[in-house]
Amino acid sequence: MGNPMAKNLMKHGYPLVIYDVFPDACKEFHDAGEQVVSSPADVAEKADRIITMLPTSTNAIEAYSGANGILKKVKKGSLLIDSSTIDPAVSKELAKEVERMGAVFMDAPVSGGVGAARSGNLTFMVGGVEEEFAAAQELLGCMGANVVYCGAVGTGQAAKICNNMLLAITMIGTAETMNLGIRLGLDPKLLAKILNMSSGRCWSSDTYNPVPGVMDGVPSANNYQGGFGTTLMAKDLGLAQDSATSTKSPILLGSQAHQIYRMMCAKGYSKKDFSSVFQYLREEETF
Amino acid sequence: MGNPMAKNLMKHGYPLVIYDVFPDACKEFHDAGEQVVSSPADVAEKADRIITMLPTSTNAIEAYSGANGILKKVKKGSLLIDSSTIDPAVSKELAKEVERMGAVFMDAPVSGGVGAARSGNLTFMVGGVEEEFAAAQELLGCMGANVVYCGAVGTGQAAKICNNMLLAITMIGTAETMNLGIRLGLDPKLLAKILNMSSGRCWSSDTYNPVPGVMDGVPSANNYQGGFGTTLMAKDLGLAQDSATSTKSPILLGSQAHQIYRMMCAKGYSKKDFSSVFQYLREEETF
Amino acid sequence: MGNPMAKNLMKHGYPLVIYDVFPDACKEFHDAGEQVVSSPADVAEKADRIITMLPTSTNAIEAYSGANGILKKVKKGSLLIDSSTIDPAVSKELAKEVERMGAVFMDAPVSGGVGAARSGNLTFMVGGVEEEFAAAQELLGCMGANVVYCGAVGTGQAAKICNNMLLAITMIGTAETMNLGIRLGLDPKLLAKILNMSSGRCWSSDTYNPVPGVMDGVPSANNYQGGFGTTLMAKDLGLAQDSATSTKSPILLGSQAHQIYRMMCAKGYSKKDFSSVFQYLREEETF
Amino acid sequence: MGNPMAKNLMKHGYPLVIYDVFPDACKEFHDAGEQVVSSPADVAEKADRIITMLPTSTNAIEAYSGANGILKKVKKGSLLIDSSTIDPAVSKELAKEVERMGAVFMDAPVSGGVGAARSGNLTFMVGGVEEEFAAAQELLGCMGANVVYCGAVGTGQAAKICNNMLLAITMIGTAETMNLGIRLGLDPKLLAKILNMSSGRCWSSDTYNPVPGVMDGVPSANNYQGGFGTTLMAKDLGLAQDSATSTKSPILLGSQAHQIYRMMCAKGYSKKDFSSVFQYLREEETF
Repeated sequence: MGNPMAKNLMKHGYPLVIYDVFPDACKEFHDAGEQVVSSPADVAEKADRIITMLPTSTNAIEAYSGANGILKKVKKGSLLIDSSTIDPAVSKELAKEVERMGAVFMDAPVSGGVGAARSGNLTFMVGGVEEEFAAAQELLGCMGANVVYCGAVGTGQAAKICNNMLLAITMIGTAETMNLGIRLGLDPKLLAKILNMSSGRCWSSDTYNPVPGVMDGVPSANNYQGGFGTTLMAKDLGLAQDSATSTKSPILLGSQAHQIYRMMCAKGYSKKDFSSVFQYLREEETF
Repeated sequence: MGNPMAKNLMKHGYPLVIYDVFPDACKEFHDAGEQVVSSPADVAEKADRIITMLPTSTNAIEAYSGANGILKKVKKGSLLIDSSTIDPAVSKELAKEVERMGAVFMDAPVSGGVGAARSGNLTFMVGGVEEEFAAAQELLGCMGANVVYCGAVGTGQAAKICNNMLLAITMIGTAETMNLGIRLGLDPKLLAKILNMSSGRCWSSDTYNPVPGVMDGVPSANNYQGGFGTTLMAKDLGLAQDSATSTKSPILLGSQAHQIYRMMCAKGYSKKDFSSVFQYLREEETF
Repeated sequence: MGNPMAKNLMKHGYPLVIYDVFPDACKEFHDAGEQVVSSPADVAEKADRIITMLPTSTNAIEAYSGANGILKKVKKGSLLIDSSTIDPAVSKELAKEVERMGAVFMDAPVSGGVGAARSGNLTFMVGGVEEEFAAAQELLGCMGANVVYCGAVGTGQAAKICNNMLLAITMIGTAETMNLGIRLGLDPKLLAKILNMSSGRCWSSDTYNPVPGVMDGVPSANNYQGGFGTTLMAKDLGLAQDSATSTKSPILLGSQAHQIYRMMCAKGYSKKDFSSVFQYLREEETF
Repeated sequence: MGNPMAKNLMKHGYPLVIYDVFPDACKEFHDAGEQVVSSPADVAEKADRIITMLPTSTNAIEAYSGANGILKKVKKGSLLIDSSTIDPAVSKELAKEVERMGAVFMDAPVSGGVGAARSGNLTFMVGGVEEEFAAAQELLGCMGANVVYCGAVGTGQAAKICNNMLLAITMIGTAETMNLGIRLGLDPKLLAKILNMSSGRCWSSDTYNPVPGVMDGVPSANNYQGGFGTTLMAKDLGLAQDSATSTKSPILLGSQAHQIYRMMCAKGYSKKDFSSVFQYLREEETF
């Protein structure tokens, strides 16, 4: 994800200072004349507006607070924007450490996949001090069509996690419903049409239907390739679960959705689009 | 429900022959000059197009196959339309019995509440022999804005049950998500807005949001009065559960939704709108 | 199951009149000099104490109320004992029909598998009029070590269904717990020992542990062959689900257990022992 | 819990150095001539065998690694035993920090409540280096009847969490089953007897039955007072959930049990014994 995001910043004329744990990932930026450095700390030494994009909470902590992390050399007044999807509690903790160094931290996770990143159509959900939002928006607007201010630090993560939990629930619900209807004798296209004009309508039924043959141009039309992988959904549901446990919020269906995607990862669906839950439920009884 | 439906037929000029187990319910039709008779059999003797509207599968069996049921005096070629929401397996059974008498049976459950019934805006989901659909549509079109042909007998019920199962899942999912987001510090209106422009969007989030203060004109804005009661949702989920069990279809979230609405019925929510699941989840820990 | 049960009656000196839909199943009884007849009605004509053992509610209805069913020729005062595991509501319905013919009906489902049937160690849970229990016990005692009177007609089924629902829940719970403990670094034998001396103890942990290597002489020690099949457990959970739905009893974990065994049937576990849920949960994430 | 544990050490002749965040809690030990100090660091300065007992992971981190924590003044070669029930990942982290100071850390959570603590009948599940187990056992044996070695650091917590997760599942399962059986017409005492001689048997059915009137001397016989509170069970299930999420272990019923106890905390059951889930499920539908 970081690669197409960086390219969109280049297109808007921003000079870059780049670091990635995999040096090969930086090669094309080096060839294009951008600076490539050898640690997050080195980025912080040279830049005062920094965007981080990392796969897990642990990676984010390392990039900020590690031995060669950003905080080792961050300049006062710098704006640090983390676009990783991580635990909101970790975002808040990082924000405190950044503030102690006299800089500003905002969490700004994205929705939309690699395609949206390339075309600059990501949505950013931004949490942090409101006065700094305009500055963040200037940068994020180069990479995303929607930049939404969500509130205090951590609320960007919260919004992302909430959306994806509801998405997982509605997708599994759509898959169960379509499967039940088909077994009761309904034509899948007709059933989708009825749901979509009724109160069962949801994005998973009307825009991303999980049943092969119902819609074109979605992963279910292409053997569940592309799209948003089951492993990634399981990861986001783990974050939702952690947040719900720590805030003592009951999530009966959210928990169940988490367990279902966890099971699917172990059954060969880890790299398929998350709408493949229809296929997972659909497998026929064997005799 | 039967009352406003009958009135809409009157408005379209159809003469009525009416029966209800509660004689008082027939009084205003008698005063308006319509025939009121004393059993379903008597209706069948006088009318060759009959619409039934009953609360349970047991009631429907009684009205058709009981000692004074329609089948006792049904005329050959009659068109019998059952608008009850019942087990599709029962609809199929009734259709067989009706066919043996030389008449035609169609299932045509409705969606939309008493308000939609009054204004003639119900949606009918119709199952039965396709050649008879035009005849059914002529009558049902007097009472509903949408009359959808779903396939063989029982598929009207199947479509209704499927929609309501998905509705229950998306509503509980929306309630869990909104509650989690609020506890994580998000403003409810803002969270609803973000979900509705993202992939978590569903009818329960964008048209019937369960959180008080987010939308006007929905039950959550009126202490969950009016709307579609929790008891009725629990009943429809029981039908979904029965259909899933008999067709061996896995419904992990559907089952859970059934159990949640069943619990709510026992906790004082039976007469509240089904969106009150937000309130049920929201209650604070007491110390 | 019927075969070893009938043999135990023979051993106790009872003359038999036998019917099975598969004539081959009767051959060895014919060779041993017992009467084999060609319908349930024929059995009823010749015998006044009849034991039925059938796989589903539908089969039981056919055997009693079908065109050549027992009720066609049942003698007044006959004692009819149904050892099938079926819906208690069906047992009650059959009891009413039998009573109308002047005979007595009792439900007496069994627990224990084919092995227990052979050795005469079945447990019978009996529902019906208390005054007839002694007569039933005389026969059932030839085939089972425990014959328990449970109350009015249908309570034998209720007891069986309740036990098996709790069994399914404790087995899945044991499997989840053992798997979690192993992943947290515990030795499976040690974990089983700790659970069995603590409050987590259950039959599934101390007598029928689902983890290979923990106990000898159980299906988990033999690749989950033998024992009580996943399909049969899914069937019994379907009966529990139906009973819970019709009595409006919340079964949050029971429903979930039903769905899990339903899923397993479709994933190649249908003929394995139900303790194979450990294997189902255990499969590793693939990359 | 700490109070009766400390008294049992006194009874065995050990001199004590005591600290508690609530000074009043130390008064009776001061009056008895024991040393009371003003921080965990002060305990570490004076004692080389230290037992900690704290309510949450956060409290444990503070007591060891805080500004006045044990690690500030711990002596080389000290044995530190933590009897708190906390996240095994936190136990492992603390063990690393303790090891860096040249001391030894073991996790030794207990099962059994305040009564068992008073009578010296607790069970300790101990994780840590095996060579140090004898030294730990000498101390813990003064307070508990069973001291079980579970393996490497963190496995004591793992065993405790696993047992309590299975306990929660079997208790809810027993409550659902007893409730369903009663609604199907079974006498509760008879149903418990049948389950306890069958494969549904578990500690929750045979030793701690949740249905009032079935057993004496358990919380269900005393309006669910005493015993193990719902809040504590919800806390332990939160730890199980966190461990399952981080190890990617599916816990379908464990998650559901967590959510159910979380809901109960918000519905007025927080201080009742966890077997009150029967009462929670049992409440009747209101009309």
